[in-house]
Amino acid sequence: MTTAPRKFWGWGREGEGPTEEQAAGVLRTLAGHFGREDLELAPAPRIDDVTLPEPRLAPPDALAEICTREPLERASHTYGKSFRDIVRGLRGDFAPAPDFVAFPRDEGEVAALLDWCGDAGAAAIPYGGGSSVCGGVEAQVGDRFAGAVSIDLARLDRVLEIDRSSRAARIQGGIYGPALEDALRPEGLTLRHFPQSFEFSTLGGWIATRSGGHYATLYTHIDDFVEGMRTITPTGVIESRRLPGSGAGPSPDRWLMGSEGTLGIIVEAWMRLQDRPTFRASVSMRFTGEDGFRRGAQAVRALSQTGLFPTNCRLLDPNEAQTAGAGDGSAAILVLGFESADHGLDAWMDRALECCRDAGGDAPEDAGRTRSDEGATREGAAGAWRQAFLNAPYLRDVLARASCISETFETAITWDRFESFHADVMNATEDAVKRVCGTGRVACRFTHVYPDGPAPYYTVLAPGRRGSELEQWAEIKHAASEALLAAGGTITHHHAVGRDFRPWYDRQRPDGFARALRAAKNELDPAGILNPGVLLD
Amino acid sequence: MTTAPRKFWGWGREGEGPTEEQAAGVLRTLAGHFGREDLELAPAPRIDDVTLPEPRLAPPDALAEICTREPLERASHTYGKSFRDIVRGLRGDFAPAPDFVAFPRDEGEVAALLDWCGDAGAAAIPYGGGSSVCGGVEAQVGDRFAGAVSIDLARLDRVLEIDRSSRAARIQGGIYGPALEDALRPEGLTLRHFPQSFEFSTLGGWIATRSGGHYATLYTHIDDFVEGMRTITPTGVIESRRLPGSGAGPSPDRWLMGSEGTLGIIVEAWMRLQDRPTFRASVSMRFTGEDGFRRGAQAVRALSQTGLFPTNCRLLDPNEAQTAGAGDGSAAILVLGFESADHGLDAWMDRALECCRDAGGDAPEDAGRTRSDEGATREGAAGAWRQAFLNAPYLRDVLARASCISETFETAITWDRFESFHADVMNATEDAVKRVCGTGRVACRFTHVYPDGPAPYYTVLAPGRRGSELEQWAEIKHAASEALLAAGGTITHHHAVGRDFRPWYDRQRPDGFARALRAAKNELDPAGILNPGVLLD
Repeated sequence: MTTAPRKFWGWGREGEGPTEEQAAGVLRTLAGHFGREDLELAPAPRIDDVTLPEPRLAPPDALAEICTREPLERASHTYGKSFRDIVRGLRGDFAPAPDFVAFPRDEGEVAALLDWCGDAGAAAIPYGGGSSVCGGVEAQVGDRFAGAVSIDLARLDRVLEIDRSSRAARIQGGIYGPALEDALRPEGLTLRHFPQSFEFSTLGGWIATRSGGHYATLYTHIDDFVEGMRTITPTGVIESRRLPGSGAGPSPDRWLMGSEGTLGIIVEAWMRLQDRPTFRASVSMRFTGEDGFRRGAQAVRALSQTGLFPTNCRLLDPNEAQTAGAGDGSAAILVLGFESADHGLDAWMDRALECCRDAGGDAPEDAGRTRSDEGATREGAAGAWRQAFLNAPYLRDVLARASCISETFETAITWDRFESFHADVMNATEDAVKRVCGTGRVACRFTHVYPDGPAPYYTVLAPGRRGSELEQWAEIKHAASEALLAAGGTITHHHAVGRDFRPWYDRQRPDGFARALRAAKNELDPAGILNPGVLLD
Repeated sequence: MTTAPRKFWGWGREGEGPTEEQAAGVLRTLAGHFGREDLELAPAPRIDDVTLPEPRLAPPDALAEICTREPLERASHTYGKSFRDIVRGLRGDFAPAPDFVAFPRDEGEVAALLDWCGDAGAAAIPYGGGSSVCGGVEAQVGDRFAGAVSIDLARLDRVLEIDRSSRAARIQGGIYGPALEDALRPEGLTLRHFPQSFEFSTLGGWIATRSGGHYATLYTHIDDFVEGMRTITPTGVIESRRLPGSGAGPSPDRWLMGSEGTLGIIVEAWMRLQDRPTFRASVSMRFTGEDGFRRGAQAVRALSQTGLFPTNCRLLDPNEAQTAGAGDGSAAILVLGFESADHGLDAWMDRALECCRDAGGDAPEDAGRTRSDEGATREGAAGAWRQAFLNAPYLRDVLARASCISETFETAITWDRFESFHADVMNATEDAVKRVCGTGRVACRFTHVYPDGPAPYYTVLAPGRRGSELEQWAEIKHAASEALLAAGGTITHHHAVGRDFRPWYDRQRPDGFARALRAAKNELDPAGILNPGVLLD
């Protein structure tokens, strides 16, 4: 099997995603929907047409073998995958390109690269799968540095050890999602962490950004799956013991999780695994009427407090349901599922359906029986939603080519404030969309749910103006972020902070904690070479 | 209702626990059991007979109203409640007494006390309920300080706000367990965090030490119940947002949890609560034969990986079962229970019983049906074990008076290493007990269980020599700690580190993390006044 190369400017691999013909169809749909017959598809950029800045740095001889200044690699490592990144890529703007890209083969080479960066006054940008949507891998490092090196961990791609008895594995940080699952499958195990970026993101990246995954409840972030970690900092290795639980001081792992490459590079982790599920029960419930989404949220709140812990519990508002092909736009849809490798799920689903029906949810009488085949999660609204979920990043490349603003933001809020919070955020965002684009659509779903509140995820789709897309999105993002911060939410539930969300993160983060984090950073990375501008100045 | 004063040297209140007659009975049992007719009960000390060191510091005039140098208070705040503490108390040795004790009424007074300590060069020892078993509240602060002030948070004792919809409450850090539950009960809510110290420990203390509580699985430590925190440091307040979940950088709360009063004083927290359970199902299973405990552990491993999340899952080895009155010493006992405020538990218990029976566990055919009365947790082996659990600290005062070594230590280890780990720790501890005391007993139970490993808890009981108890216990503790550290465990699962477990914690903790923690401490507490000697030098 040959694998096509990754797109240097957008999602996935060359030749995958919509064909040009399908893209033209998308354009026609958009044009009709928004009444904007002037929309046009910009061509995808070609690497030969891209002008990269002259490299300021040459790789050291000792590491030359693992370093490259090849334009395709430099361009591919310039950005993450936010809308802003895609638009700049489409324009052929790769101004923040790293001076070279390094592919260390072991942790010794990681340490050597950090040493060299320290000596050379170069910024070191840790790079996993490059799926950041917050400027987390972009070498905007300022004049303080002699240049920037993108350190791509893709060669640290192995599962090193599997402990079947404890259901855990020691895994290198640079491994991609599919390779990780492939290595675990023969043992009947799975990490079961499936962010939307699954195919193009890495274990180390997930931990560094506190990624959100498969489980809608209980194990929402990757955090709980980390049993122990090994991290290379500019001043040495930090390796924690693998332990099922400990109360010996603050958790060293929790100090490093979410540090987004500013404190060190995660080269290995012992991860907690799951048995591959063999029982499944799923259902999609409709909540119709004007207040369908509100009643769906009530059902989800009740469910979240039962202790049943559904694996899937995605509430889609009517817009989101329609966009995902999981509904006709007349109802909110709750995609609800349980899975287990151990036991049938009828008792769980029966009680969950009661909660939903109490809140006015509607599903066929015989829905939700336990099945023991893979098909259970791939049919009906659940299947439609899943497919749309995986296609979304490919589709966004097309939307960006049509100068359509297409981006998401996510947050979390306690239940007591949810209704007014959601109203504030929707109003602020819809107002901004209307002001900036004349028309557009804002949709919401819950990606994760806690006993004390949901994690709402908002999707914006609006027709932009070619050449002004970045400013248009910035204005919408600003309005949404101000609203959600003012209403008590978090600036990110699982997309991380990076460079792009700093203005709001800085206000959300307690000052004393910022000082403590800065002090820890200065200790571990005294030259400040690691991912400068992310989390901290 | 009048409340008797707390004992200044031991557990609980004056007049509670065993009577002198009962204590004499305990002595006779011990004497018979260990063949040591020479054991004698030392008298409980009287405060009038205690000589405290002359105070080196006088409280400032501005804070005089909330400060005392009264001997009873100084003595009561000298130690925690470890065996070592009780023995020193019995001997009338209160050498590390704080120079005065302060009872701030609000966070302004907490800040004022920290300011004053900084100016005066005094150490500030945060004091919750004083139930530390690791030297966490003992003012062994060295000559660098002009003296030491014990800051008792007991007046910050209110539930300030309840959010029924999100099941959360804003609670002051100094509130004791019973008062906290009393305040939540009218709302039908409960924190459901019941460490053994419940009656004499506080919310702030639980968070500062990452306390382990009621739930044997899933919510093992207090950590997961913290929604947001407010902490006073010498350089300002750190208040995190209350959020059901967030991925915005490393969690500020997780940085502070487990800091054991070295980074700040927790004055408030938003805590996640539970509905009060109305359904219960419980059972005790016997695992008989030579390898009963090993097979019980296999059952617990299987159970831990089912996703059923039993609330209670305490495996007692035959010694532990006998001591607790939950068995006759011929079998390991698994006390297994589920509880819910939402649904009947038969499906859960049925599958759990299957797992246990697969491993050779034995219980009556009709055991484990769901009940909806309080009695379900108070009968049979579960009830016996629960009562013994609550009585244990009172009993230990008697044992210490009889110069019997009576202490516990706890750890955690992954399943793959459990059997050899347990053998190593038992051998090392039993050898030390035999060497030091001639005879004695070491028992084990699991207090908490994870999918990737158990948290074993060891209890040592051995006849000591009057006047040598501290050295005897130190030698046993040393042997046990060396063994568990060498075999890959953690020096503490939920008892914290304090001053006493530092030698092993320092070796367990990654060096780079120690440096980062020290840097954060220097930033937040530049004069190093907060609980010096705990976690860090």
